[in-house]
Amino acid sequence: MSRFWSPVVHSLSPYTPGEQPKRDGIIKLNTNENPYPPSPQVLAAIASATDRLRLYPDPHAFALRETIAAHTGVAPEEVFVGNGSDEVLAHTFQALLKHDAPLLFPDITYSFYPVYCGLYGIRHEEVPLDAAMRVQIADYRRPCSAILLPNPNAPTGIALPRQAIEALAAEHPDQLVVVDEAYVDFGAESAVPLVARHDNLLVAQTLSKSRALAGLRVGFAIGQRPLIEALERVKDSFNSYPLGCLSIAGAVAAIKDDAWFQETRQRIMASRQSLAGALSELGFEVLPSMANFVFARHRSHSGADLAARLRERGVLVRHFRKTRIEDFLRITVGTEEQCSRLIELLRGLN
Amino acid sequence: MSRFWSPVVHSLSPYTPGEQPKRDGIIKLNTNENPYPPSPQVLAAIASATDRLRLYPDPHAFALRETIAAHTGVAPEEVFVGNGSDEVLAHTFQALLKHDAPLLFPDITYSFYPVYCGLYGIRHEEVPLDAAMRVQIADYRRPCSAILLPNPNAPTGIALPRQAIEALAAEHPDQLVVVDEAYVDFGAESAVPLVARHDNLLVAQTLSKSRALAGLRVGFAIGQRPLIEALERVKDSFNSYPLGCLSIAGAVAAIKDDAWFQETRQRIMASRQSLAGALSELGFEVLPSMANFVFARHRSHSGADLAARLRERGVLVRHFRKTRIEDFLRITVGTEEQCSRLIELLRGLN
Repeated sequence: MSRFWSPVVHSLSPYTPGEQPKRDGIIKLNTNENPYPPSPQVLAAIASATDRLRLYPDPHAFALRETIAAHTGVAPEEVFVGNGSDEVLAHTFQALLKHDAPLLFPDITYSFYPVYCGLYGIRHEEVPLDAAMRVQIADYRRPCSAILLPNPNAPTGIALPRQAIEALAAEHPDQLVVVDEAYVDFGAESAVPLVARHDNLLVAQTLSKSRALAGLRVGFAIGQRPLIEALERVKDSFNSYPLGCLSIAGAVAAIKDDAWFQETRQRIMASRQSLAGALSELGFEVLPSMANFVFARHRSHSGADLAARLRERGVLVRHFRKTRIEDFLRITVGTEEQCSRLIELLRGLN
Repeated sequence: MSRFWSPVVHSLSPYTPGEQPKRDGIIKLNTNENPYPPSPQVLAAIASATDRLRLYPDPHAFALRETIAAHTGVAPEEVFVGNGSDEVLAHTFQALLKHDAPLLFPDITYSFYPVYCGLYGIRHEEVPLDAAMRVQIADYRRPCSAILLPNPNAPTGIALPRQAIEALAAEHPDQLVVVDEAYVDFGAESAVPLVARHDNLLVAQTLSKSRALAGLRVGFAIGQRPLIEALERVKDSFNSYPLGCLSIAGAVAAIKDDAWFQETRQRIMASRQSLAGALSELGFEVLPSMANFVFARHRSHSGADLAARLRERGVLVRHFRKTRIEDFLRITVGTEEQCSRLIELLRGLN
């Protein structure tokens, strides 16, 4: 603490990211990284962009916005890009979610959302998931300025169908509906095709998971132009160049290599199915996941205990000390080999 | 405009970065980039970091903070790193400069400062430079919450000696003094050695200019721990990973290659001297620059006119349509060849 701090700093409760261990040989199933490397085209694009390092990058990252636009069927002016979807979300909170009425999001969800609210002084209300840990859109029929839903939700992994998102947007024409699709590429339906007919819909995605580029820091949002303009006004009042030349070049190559994307995500979805089956056999309740992780609790072992015992054995999974989910583990879908090793260890702990 | 915008968005006047032309063959003397490439060690470090792209980077960027700390003689906990010094400054405004009394900075200075004030709702007052375009620290003896000075100042290029910064910090023990040293490596004295004895001093630097890494997006701040803690609390409430693995690895290598750094900055300082001399001979008044640019006005040609005519001939320089400096050009010090070409063109325009 210090007399120089701005008042808001005293009350912040910063987000705690998952551990990034410094030692080797750890099986990392704690931060939902892709177990496969990014496309070789990404590495080639990065290598050839290094001769532009001395120059500022394009502040509008137009090449990347054009590539994302072509891939998703929107116009480049309907795409906003940033330093990971966390930065895109931060700008969204400041640019579009600060109003008098509260913002609504689920009680069990990405734990960064209340942190952003604290940073920007945004009122919010948490809407409880139902007993099966599902989002019920009818529960969002209450006074609010905006609604924020991850789809699939994290850490549950449970997805809503596109028609539910459409119903939500249609029911709330004067409230912004933000859909955080960080995990959408592992089997859920994206809301991007709805953007053309709903001016109150903003969809955020990331290259960190399905494109295996957590280390490059690229995320984006898609929405109609007035929404993108708000994000750009805030971004251009904060940092002109959140994406360096290597990030832009690598991200363009990642989006373009659709074959690599399809192959790796299919492998992860197949592994998720076998992992969920094996966990069920071991006495876990496994929520139906459409993400690259499963959320599961054992009928007799506590989540904290299992996480600690796996950790001693060199496997990291994520455990949240939070009401309703303290018995759950969030387990990233690793390679087949990593999943087998996890199951073998859990069998030994039974 | 849209009914979904947060109120602050309507009143923002975003920063306009210098042009990044898409066509080749332009001599770019408009955004103060380094005319020489970064150290070859940087390229090697980036290449070897690409095998970690699928993983999240260290959210604390400890390897980089440790390297900067060793290089500047402080502790790693006295170093904050971010996505360019623009992001570091943005967090500084939010974390340390939002108070009831106004923030002071010069009337002629980096034009992003008032933009940050608009974004965060920070009161500020502009303190006029003297008639010779110099900062006079006596002019800052007025009620304020904090003082922000670039040293050297931009776009004038004029530097204060370290003892003036020390006097300023000593005169204002209860106000934060932020020194933006984006251009300090081209001959000015850094305030970093003062940090140990002044708890009210924060110094920001960038790797964009003297390390030739504008495209990598790395900046940092140095100050006593409570100041760094405020920046970290805001950063961890905004985006856990503003620096990707390539940025961290490249920046570490750049800081470590001191020989490359010394050689390129000496070349730029030598070119600055010849460029300033040649401009004076052509009838320009050239302010005494300690940066990698010169700020100069011609006795008979307007700044706007010269900038336009140079542009037609394939040379970009920066011109600001702002009272007091509208007749000036800010010209980045390029290679010897680029400077000669500029002088040749200006001679033809006389």
